[in-house]
Amino acid sequence: MATLPMARPVFVSPRGEPPSETLRARLAATRALTLALSAPLGAEDMAAQAIEEASPTKWHLAHTSWFFETFVLTRFLPFYELFDSAFGYCFNSYYDCAGARQPRPKRGLLSRPPLERVLAYRRHVEAGLERLFDQGVAAKGEAASLIELGVQHEQQHQELMLADILALFAANPLRPAYRAAPPRSLGGAAEPLRWIGYAGGIVRIGRDLGEGFSFDNETPRHDALIHPFAIADRPVTNGEWLEFVEDGGYRDPSLWLSDGWAAVEREGWEAPAYWERRGDAFLAMTLEGLRSPEPAAPVAHVSFYEADAFARWTGARLPTEFEWEAVAAEEPVAGNLLDGGALRPTPPAESFEGHPRQLFGDVWEWTGSAHLPYPSYRRPAGAIGEYNAKFMCDQHVLRGGCCVTPQGHIRASYRNFLYARQRWLFAGLRLARDVSR
Amino acid sequence: MATLPMARPVFVSPRGEPPSETLRARLAATRALTLALSAPLGAEDMAAQAIEEASPTKWHLAHTSWFFETFVLTRFLPFYELFDSAFGYCFNSYYDCAGARQPRPKRGLLSRPPLERVLAYRRHVEAGLERLFDQGVAAKGEAASLIELGVQHEQQHQELMLADILALFAANPLRPAYRAAPPRSLGGAAEPLRWIGYAGGIVRIGRDLGEGFSFDNETPRHDALIHPFAIADRPVTNGEWLEFVEDGGYRDPSLWLSDGWAAVEREGWEAPAYWERRGDAFLAMTLEGLRSPEPAAPVAHVSFYEADAFARWTGARLPTEFEWEAVAAEEPVAGNLLDGGALRPTPPAESFEGHPRQLFGDVWEWTGSAHLPYPSYRRPAGAIGEYNAKFMCDQHVLRGGCCVTPQGHIRASYRNFLYARQRWLFAGLRLARDVSR
Amino acid sequence: MATLPMARPVFVSPRGEPPSETLRARLAATRALTLALSAPLGAEDMAAQAIEEASPTKWHLAHTSWFFETFVLTRFLPFYELFDSAFGYCFNSYYDCAGARQPRPKRGLLSRPPLERVLAYRRHVEAGLERLFDQGVAAKGEAASLIELGVQHEQQHQELMLADILALFAANPLRPAYRAAPPRSLGGAAEPLRWIGYAGGIVRIGRDLGEGFSFDNETPRHDALIHPFAIADRPVTNGEWLEFVEDGGYRDPSLWLSDGWAAVEREGWEAPAYWERRGDAFLAMTLEGLRSPEPAAPVAHVSFYEADAFARWTGARLPTEFEWEAVAAEEPVAGNLLDGGALRPTPPAESFEGHPRQLFGDVWEWTGSAHLPYPSYRRPAGAIGEYNAKFMCDQHVLRGGCCVTPQGHIRASYRNFLYARQRWLFAGLRLARDVSR
Amino acid sequence: MATLPMARPVFVSPRGEPPSETLRARLAATRALTLALSAPLGAEDMAAQAIEEASPTKWHLAHTSWFFETFVLTRFLPFYELFDSAFGYCFNSYYDCAGARQPRPKRGLLSRPPLERVLAYRRHVEAGLERLFDQGVAAKGEAASLIELGVQHEQQHQELMLADILALFAANPLRPAYRAAPPRSLGGAAEPLRWIGYAGGIVRIGRDLGEGFSFDNETPRHDALIHPFAIADRPVTNGEWLEFVEDGGYRDPSLWLSDGWAAVEREGWEAPAYWERRGDAFLAMTLEGLRSPEPAAPVAHVSFYEADAFARWTGARLPTEFEWEAVAAEEPVAGNLLDGGALRPTPPAESFEGHPRQLFGDVWEWTGSAHLPYPSYRRPAGAIGEYNAKFMCDQHVLRGGCCVTPQGHIRASYRNFLYARQRWLFAGLRLARDVSR
Repeated sequence: MATLPMARPVFVSPRGEPPSETLRARLAATRALTLALSAPLGAEDMAAQAIEEASPTKWHLAHTSWFFETFVLTRFLPFYELFDSAFGYCFNSYYDCAGARQPRPKRGLLSRPPLERVLAYRRHVEAGLERLFDQGVAAKGEAASLIELGVQHEQQHQELMLADILALFAANPLRPAYRAAPPRSLGGAAEPLRWIGYAGGIVRIGRDLGEGFSFDNETPRHDALIHPFAIADRPVTNGEWLEFVEDGGYRDPSLWLSDGWAAVEREGWEAPAYWERRGDAFLAMTLEGLRSPEPAAPVAHVSFYEADAFARWTGARLPTEFEWEAVAAEEPVAGNLLDGGALRPTPPAESFEGHPRQLFGDVWEWTGSAHLPYPSYRRPAGAIGEYNAKFMCDQHVLRGGCCVTPQGHIRASYRNFLYARQRWLFAGLRLARDVSR
Repeated sequence: MATLPMARPVFVSPRGEPPSETLRARLAATRALTLALSAPLGAEDMAAQAIEEASPTKWHLAHTSWFFETFVLTRFLPFYELFDSAFGYCFNSYYDCAGARQPRPKRGLLSRPPLERVLAYRRHVEAGLERLFDQGVAAKGEAASLIELGVQHEQQHQELMLADILALFAANPLRPAYRAAPPRSLGGAAEPLRWIGYAGGIVRIGRDLGEGFSFDNETPRHDALIHPFAIADRPVTNGEWLEFVEDGGYRDPSLWLSDGWAAVEREGWEAPAYWERRGDAFLAMTLEGLRSPEPAAPVAHVSFYEADAFARWTGARLPTEFEWEAVAAEEPVAGNLLDGGALRPTPPAESFEGHPRQLFGDVWEWTGSAHLPYPSYRRPAGAIGEYNAKFMCDQHVLRGGCCVTPQGHIRASYRNFLYARQRWLFAGLRLARDVSR
Repeated sequence: MATLPMARPVFVSPRGEPPSETLRARLAATRALTLALSAPLGAEDMAAQAIEEASPTKWHLAHTSWFFETFVLTRFLPFYELFDSAFGYCFNSYYDCAGARQPRPKRGLLSRPPLERVLAYRRHVEAGLERLFDQGVAAKGEAASLIELGVQHEQQHQELMLADILALFAANPLRPAYRAAPPRSLGGAAEPLRWIGYAGGIVRIGRDLGEGFSFDNETPRHDALIHPFAIADRPVTNGEWLEFVEDGGYRDPSLWLSDGWAAVEREGWEAPAYWERRGDAFLAMTLEGLRSPEPAAPVAHVSFYEADAFARWTGARLPTEFEWEAVAAEEPVAGNLLDGGALRPTPPAESFEGHPRQLFGDVWEWTGSAHLPYPSYRRPAGAIGEYNAKFMCDQHVLRGGCCVTPQGHIRASYRNFLYARQRWLFAGLRLARDVSR
Repeated sequence: MATLPMARPVFVSPRGEPPSETLRARLAATRALTLALSAPLGAEDMAAQAIEEASPTKWHLAHTSWFFETFVLTRFLPFYELFDSAFGYCFNSYYDCAGARQPRPKRGLLSRPPLERVLAYRRHVEAGLERLFDQGVAAKGEAASLIELGVQHEQQHQELMLADILALFAANPLRPAYRAAPPRSLGGAAEPLRWIGYAGGIVRIGRDLGEGFSFDNETPRHDALIHPFAIADRPVTNGEWLEFVEDGGYRDPSLWLSDGWAAVEREGWEAPAYWERRGDAFLAMTLEGLRSPEPAAPVAHVSFYEADAFARWTGARLPTEFEWEAVAAEEPVAGNLLDGGALRPTPPAESFEGHPRQLFGDVWEWTGSAHLPYPSYRRPAGAIGEYNAKFMCDQHVLRGGCCVTPQGHIRASYRNFLYARQRWLFAGLRLARDVSR
């Protein structure tokens, strides 16, 4: 492992505020982007559900509209008429307070309503929102807050749409590509990893309402105590992961958590999701079809169990979410995000200048922290209270966004969360280690 | 139960030969009908798989083409080029000798190839078959036999397509109709059931090769011994089934086989598949959407377990497949089949004149017989040997075809088979009973 | 395969009547034998349940007493007091009409009542039965019939006790022996199999009430039609099975039924149950501990799926139960049964004199027949109607008894039945084949 | 909810050091107590395994001996001979580095070795340990550390033995009592709950090696930041839980975590484990058999999901493990523990004097904290590294010990952990809430 430059442990304010366009403009842009992302897909592609945790594209298109209809239009737009009273059952995701719903593993059976009708649903809802803006209701107060939430919610589903399509195409024997792309040079190995040290102390974590949009699970802003640590200047790469595979990392129980080893044995894991052995090498299924993994690009599609075992193999560990946020709060919110169009993790663009690279974008980074409420967290009232709060159990925090996270959606305080076993999102890891004072 | 007219126990030759058109004409008509059956469906409807035993319409369209390509064209048409070498994996159903294949429960993930490409596949295969006929190869010998098998195979999939679509639409919260239809009068109760007696004796069962097309599991023609019995003049009706439900039939373990009672408890069965309680009554999902069950129409979508329990409740039993065939061999092969266009079981058209009615069409009739090889049965060589022979274990014979069985496909000796728990086909029952000599 | 001497196809009356001792004496002897069979076991051995289909010895000891208490004493013995009113729940096996019961997979949790109390229960019930005989009630009429049934029932459980203990000890890492035994010579290969031909025709199958004891599923005696066939003079041996294993029999799907191949893949079967690979050879767990399989002894502990695949591998088939009974009806009911004390299948004692050997004892022989009701079968009234009738679905008939079947319990018409996947009983097979007239 | 006296937030040193007897004396006493706890049980009781997470008593007796044999005797006692080389397989719990082992769900199949042989194993190991002390090896250095660990380990299994026996007897239809006891007065409701406030700040958490025995997961001692909070003066009682049940707590998804609600629906939970409805009331299975729950005693046998839902129902929350430890560090380590002999949670003995009561003993208290490594935690080398470290994922910390925790085993820094769904231990909860500064 590389040398350890002890460095600057100042922790200031969060970054990554959404751009200053108006809410109305951002809403329109977000709705348009969602549709644009579905353009390469046929109606059949948009209807299928690869795995229980993924959803059909069409369902995403409808659910993000249902969200505005249910939480905004029916409350704030007088005389709003539901597009179809059966859609609540079809497109409610998990809001118990919004009533019964299509069982999650059966979203792929919703061949009806057909795509065109879902597109009409989108337009119907958008027309309603337009009216709300025209009436001056939407730009302020609770309506504005809920529309902002709807925009952020839809951005989350933009990312999910791409991850879910990848899961579908990876399960298809034709291994189709979401997007055609010419062959490209694989590039060489990554530069050796460098450690950046932080002194620890009391840091401010999270966001307060009023500091710009944040989800409830990022609140309230509060003090946290962190201890001196060092963090890697970049995520773990495909090349490093291949060494782990070839060193027998998937066959040595001493590297694994108990539940992780059980998953290895039960699922027969031998490499990240979407890696397929071809003789001595691996190909990986991507949004551009089957490709050789780029050695210097961050590894993706690993579970928490794998990330944890890899870190143990190196003698390091995962950072806590507090360490991660303290580091990231000092850095610009920029990176390989959806708007850049790479649609895959890539080697770092920036050169190392004492700062961690690739914190934002490329891959979500598993942390060692459980998804728990912050001190004095208050569950929001009503349906929105189900947004994150009921998932604060046995899930693990990931930070930083990935190559399919929309620009403007991510920030240092953003807390994503998954079950330890899940691999279908673009999730990788960055190493950390203790530093004795 | 009604009186028992002892009647004519003569058993002669099988019926139901396919019409005398040429093989080429029947092939063309069959291929065209398959396509026509898919016409009311959108691409999304054709891609989804409701349950493990059902398949997407698109898969049926492709598989029936793969069958001709694999077992006919690659063997008999010189220089035939596979349409797509990956399709074997996608569209092989269960032929181990034809190689690896898409896991059965994941046929609904095949959003690719898209529908248009499957339609092109159909045309490519049809063009190959045309050439085979043009070359004079297809009309005789093994090629003709295999093309005949392919036609019969495709007819089986025509029926499956409709049953599978019903399963899909029944799982859709919108309960869409495959075909729109105006309301119709429900009609009254069925006439009382009448018993028709048969004297028993040695009967000829099955078909020999050369007697017209038959599947291997109908061969060889052989003697069987049956004992005096009586059989109902018509299937059990919806009205009678409702009495069973209301009498607590689904709550009394003494009526059920042990495995059947376990299924009732595990699955929570309270009525046939697709019946939904609405207050005191039931609606049933059909190809025309949710409808009130017609009291005098045969009940459908019951498992063997339910058929057996119902029979016990009445004090009767299911007929053996030998009894059924002995009876049916005397009757014309006619009834409410696919070509009649009802697409649902209907009350009997004919009046009772001492003959059993509705033997063919309306509903497959569960028999009390296990699907076992006939005496001196020989498993065919090669892939065709997998057609039926490997399913001769723990499945139950059904006879007579149903309302979505193509005309010309059914005959007295035809043996369909299902697992006892299965309900998605149009399967009902006809009662039988012992008669003391 | 060996030559085919066409031989004597006469089919007369059943054999195997229980010995002529009085019912009272047989009851006492049966009860004593049950206890004696448990003697080598500790209380802990008697309390454990290895697999769902097996039961603890202690449960067998109690259940066979509960059977007499419930179906005989409470009905026929005035003022009989239940030993413990909670025992009905504990020791009812599957009689829905006798009330709720301990779930079958949880019989091993019944550490209470302890063994001593179960033994006291046995004595209490036996005292009641003694009184019934003293009062002259037990020797005739329905009471006598039910006591006879109880004796036969207890004999069935004697066999199960030993099979269940073997399952338990095979799952124990110490591989303990039920009975110590010195090493013995393995002996050589079996003599080549010989075929014995039968002409077919109408045969009498089953038993009528009044011909001596039989279970309801053997009734009524009736005509059946069989076709010319030949049957092997002895069961398939361990040596022959080893050839099947070494020829890749467990790796070739073309040999297997579809459900059978699924079982091979799901369970990882590579050999009969209880065989363990040791380098190039196999050891087999037996009631005498781990032993090398005797080449000339009948193979045991194979499922129906395996028996069927083996037969297909040889080009032969399993006999139907009617063929088997027709053959066995001509032979003396004698063989390697429980009372002989071998407790394992052994090479044939008799030399070949044109007669099939080892029909009775050694191993239950899987037939190709489903466990279905005979023509005009009547389900007995009341609880006894649950004895066999509710299992007439998806089970397979085995014939002939095995090395742990009590003397006097088996006969040519006896129908045992198991699910196709089950392997814990001493079940093997005998080959048959068609003979053209 | 009651008034909130703001109180003393001083946090000093840990308590609960093991008594000052010598290690040898404590070892002997611990071994003797384990045996004494098994005295009321028969050999059959000691062999059965009620649920996958529980183990048979006999297995506990053997495993705690295997632990000394494997980690102490084979390393430190020259010429030590294994009692039985097969016991490693039988009695290894989960140490991958110690080799293969009996699958956890099949511990109940180990009828062999029988109890007497396990008792002989215990004596054999104890004799070895005696020799180690005689040779002067055991009293210091690594051997002493490992013997101390073995003593602590055995104390953990003492608690498990009683919890596991309760699970077994609760699954037995006779509902046997581990210990007979006369009826007792149920007592009245608990005094109203009082809140005790703490000011927050930096507190010292955990233990350092050298401060007296602790498990690795309590190390290292480190600073943690806590925020002002209040904690209840006593655990939640049976009486309060009954209110929750009657208020529909188990039927309102808005009170539950998403995974918790799924558990409620899947498992059909309506009350704590071992509660059985009798008309309008409940009985609870205890070590003294079925009893009416005492209203003022702490509720036990609830899952984390239930504890969390209950807290939400009251408007409060669970304390973090850091809050709990900060509070408990100030209190004497005393309470209703195993040595007191109550064997059940009881109403508080002490009266309220501004201090929290029942922190130690009665019930383990679920905290809101995940079982994660402390800052700078080092996984111990070798097998001991598997003791706790591999379970630091998706488990939840419980604090304070319970009514069957041995005296001297518990302390303020002690971290127990369970999966959120588990209910078979004596686990309850204490409420906490935020306090604004």
